[in-house]
Amino acid sequence: MVKISEGDTVTIWIDSKRIYLVKVRKNGQFSTDKGNIKFDEILGKEYGSFITLSTGAKAYLLFPSLTDMYYGLRRPTQVMYPKDLGYVIFTSGVKPGDIVVEAGTGSGFLTATLSHFVGESGKVYTYEIKEGFQKIAIENVSKIGLNDRVVFKLKDVREGIDEKEVDAVFLDMADPWNAIPHAYSALKPSGSITIFIPTVNQIEKTYFALKNTGFIDIHVEELILREYQVKEGAVRPKNIGVVHTGYIIRGRKYIKT
Amino acid sequence: MVKISEGDTVTIWIDSKRIYLVKVRKNGQFSTDKGNIKFDEILGKEYGSFITLSTGAKAYLLFPSLTDMYYGLRRPTQVMYPKDLGYVIFTSGVKPGDIVVEAGTGSGFLTATLSHFVGESGKVYTYEIKEGFQKIAIENVSKIGLNDRVVFKLKDVREGIDEKEVDAVFLDMADPWNAIPHAYSALKPSGSITIFIPTVNQIEKTYFALKNTGFIDIHVEELILREYQVKEGAVRPKNIGVVHTGYIIRGRKYIKT
Amino acid sequence: MVKISEGDTVTIWIDSKRIYLVKVRKNGQFSTDKGNIKFDEILGKEYGSFITLSTGAKAYLLFPSLTDMYYGLRRPTQVMYPKDLGYVIFTSGVKPGDIVVEAGTGSGFLTATLSHFVGESGKVYTYEIKEGFQKIAIENVSKIGLNDRVVFKLKDVREGIDEKEVDAVFLDMADPWNAIPHAYSALKPSGSITIFIPTVNQIEKTYFALKNTGFIDIHVEELILREYQVKEGAVRPKNIGVVHTGYIIRGRKYIKT
Amino acid sequence: MVKISEGDTVTIWIDSKRIYLVKVRKNGQFSTDKGNIKFDEILGKEYGSFITLSTGAKAYLLFPSLTDMYYGLRRPTQVMYPKDLGYVIFTSGVKPGDIVVEAGTGSGFLTATLSHFVGESGKVYTYEIKEGFQKIAIENVSKIGLNDRVVFKLKDVREGIDEKEVDAVFLDMADPWNAIPHAYSALKPSGSITIFIPTVNQIEKTYFALKNTGFIDIHVEELILREYQVKEGAVRPKNIGVVHTGYIIRGRKYIKT
Repeated sequence: MVKISEGDTVTIWIDSKRIYLVKVRKNGQFSTDKGNIKFDEILGKEYGSFITLSTGAKAYLLFPSLTDMYYGLRRPTQVMYPKDLGYVIFTSGVKPGDIVVEAGTGSGFLTATLSHFVGESGKVYTYEIKEGFQKIAIENVSKIGLNDRVVFKLKDVREGIDEKEVDAVFLDMADPWNAIPHAYSALKPSGSITIFIPTVNQIEKTYFALKNTGFIDIHVEELILREYQVKEGAVRPKNIGVVHTGYIIRGRKYIKT
Repeated sequence: MVKISEGDTVTIWIDSKRIYLVKVRKNGQFSTDKGNIKFDEILGKEYGSFITLSTGAKAYLLFPSLTDMYYGLRRPTQVMYPKDLGYVIFTSGVKPGDIVVEAGTGSGFLTATLSHFVGESGKVYTYEIKEGFQKIAIENVSKIGLNDRVVFKLKDVREGIDEKEVDAVFLDMADPWNAIPHAYSALKPSGSITIFIPTVNQIEKTYFALKNTGFIDIHVEELILREYQVKEGAVRPKNIGVVHTGYIIRGRKYIKT
Repeated sequence: MVKISEGDTVTIWIDSKRIYLVKVRKNGQFSTDKGNIKFDEILGKEYGSFITLSTGAKAYLLFPSLTDMYYGLRRPTQVMYPKDLGYVIFTSGVKPGDIVVEAGTGSGFLTATLSHFVGESGKVYTYEIKEGFQKIAIENVSKIGLNDRVVFKLKDVREGIDEKEVDAVFLDMADPWNAIPHAYSALKPSGSITIFIPTVNQIEKTYFALKNTGFIDIHVEELILREYQVKEGAVRPKNIGVVHTGYIIRGRKYIKT
Repeated sequence: MVKISEGDTVTIWIDSKRIYLVKVRKNGQFSTDKGNIKFDEILGKEYGSFITLSTGAKAYLLFPSLTDMYYGLRRPTQVMYPKDLGYVIFTSGVKPGDIVVEAGTGSGFLTATLSHFVGESGKVYTYEIKEGFQKIAIENVSKIGLNDRVVFKLKDVREGIDEKEVDAVFLDMADPWNAIPHAYSALKPSGSITIFIPTVNQIEKTYFALKNTGFIDIHVEELILREYQVKEGAVRPKNIGVVHTGYIIRGRKYIKT
């Protein structure tokens, strides 16, 4: 039985439209349009329990999940969605203990995801050139308690990657081809590279940069997620949804000679 | 520098259509339509290197990835695809050290995926009623060396789940509603349940079983993957592809009183 | 050279977001957020020309197309989208001179589409039970000048179809299975039936009603439209879009004995 | 009651996988893997009836529809699919009596579709540079009896379009931008242009050629069709399907000065 303690970040789930990531502090409180939550009322409660607000709405107190990040963290940059993050975690082969490199940091969502999956014994090196983004990313990753696994670097990845023998490299930037040779040098043989780009124009250049640099098993893919709404006797996809986030290009390093 | 050793399972990648998961044994060999590979030639080689076959084709020797499972392992049952596996790993919040329960085992692909992500400190309990499937799953998971993290159970999950306080439950079976109350009992409060079903008919019944048993944050979703083919000056989605595998339903347990 | 005349319905296209279907009357005017348009200024102008508004925006004067209906006509009911309308026109085999039956009329968008394609020598019989919808549909179809080809009936199609030997029947209603036997009686042998339904729950019942009543070549399909945005060097699908309107079920009547 | 006559082209539908377009001749016959059909047995039968073959399979005798073209006509070139054909017919505004221009003719599927919808009072001018394709297209369109409405031209559309004041132009060719100025000259003001291209590389160049030549209301779209399979208690999308045919770009001509 795990109880909510001072300093914990808790997911407060009110209904399917309202999910908050809240750091709980003694004497503090949190306001929602369904009523206020005094933190002293929830300190010591078990994760998974709920309280009833003044409006009658129930506020469920959950242990934060990765998908909760999308509702509770700041998102100044366009980010990969859960559908994309899950897929690249799977196809990249990232696992507990891995050393991975990422650029740019952006809002830190992929950083948080990677640090979640490499675990305490792994490490994420993340490159960013804009100090403002890095600051927000540090706040975001810290809020969910994963910052110890991350090294935030204020450096242009196009000028080189300092790490060697890394398990996987992830690039989410406008001109990935300029970082691909550095990624090749940083990677272990057989290690994976994963690139996320928003436009069709970047596909061809990225693909051939990978092929010519020394990658095989190159795939260009995109994922479309459809959400369904369920009412009794009336199940159907939601009418409006996100139809595009970006294209995912991935490959594996081989030893050229 | 990691070298290929006796007993290793190696991915042999010949071109994008041919990926094999091969257990390397002294004096053994492996035949492909591009030529034979004598294992003594590749023992001691570095992962990521390649050899040239009699036909001139190059055979790249890679460290096996999760996606390689789709080409090299036996698949007697319909399985979740990488797009589905990645998404459920992400949304379920599974992480290193987690204790998870799964039913049915089937070909063991979700079993392998879960054991990859929970790491050495985690554990996967997987239920199956058909001995034949369990046998193949054990072979599959063993081939990629993850069997130490898995407890294979020959038991009907609809009669109960023995484990308690588990982090996540995964159900891939025809009548998930019969296992949902057991999943509720087995889960930690705030823990996640993930269900995979192939037909629209199962959506409504599963959804309301979750809602009535004590789950919130319930989502019904499906993923469509589009693969692109890249030629110089001619980038486009592949014409034919997989357009359906199944629907993913997920939720989180709350404490009802 | 076709000029705009008193009483014409003209499409006024201001930019990709603003399309109006406007009936032009002497001394009248039309207000937009980009400036006012006095009808006397556009009477006598050629279709395809433009005028410049007080804000500097250009207002293009076009001959109304079927897709303009979506912007300029009233839509009190959920309607089929151009992607759906185009597909059912094609697969139903509707052609100039055809006699078709439709129920329910709704906002009259399918009515307008059918009357466009059957031409002056064809006829559309459309059934509706709600007088309010019928009134709006008559206004809509009249505005684009196709009402002479349509017979609007205030009658429940579930109680029978008066017409015989019709080329095609279209059903867009909650319980199509109650109209299918009447559709069978009304159709020519080899004629087509097309049914539009929004939820997955209706698929199976509709399918087997068709099969058991005397239809073959039955298909259940849905269409997803993706729109692209084009900027120089940055082509990509729009991020948000319509991901679901409904399912299309179609078949052809055969003579049972 | 319409009966099958000597010289008719009949759709023979055996099951959902076997659809033939067959020209019926006295004393002739047609062989299928389900048994032979002697034409004398079906001459005089009503459209919509069926006969029972030696294997017990039923062969339904239907009036040919546009979708039957996909099974019974020769397709040496990649063609637009029903989903694409229906959409462009709708968005182009083509109607009975229209004069339309098309290039290239290819296998004649769009030609057949256009001639179906413009009716007896309309006309389709279709340009092709390869004599072999034109020959097949003439055969195809003749087989379904629509050749009287079509003028087949062996001419390179990039060197000019002879027709003037046409209602709509359709281009399905590798370098549509070279035909766009000719299309502009041929079209009525307010008339529509529709272009079909298979790769993402062609999108941007085509879009800006339209914009710069004098078209507005330009849209770039693609359609994804999902087919469902229905069994009792088991409705779901088919697993494998066509996920890409091409992109559709459309616009309307305006008078530039």
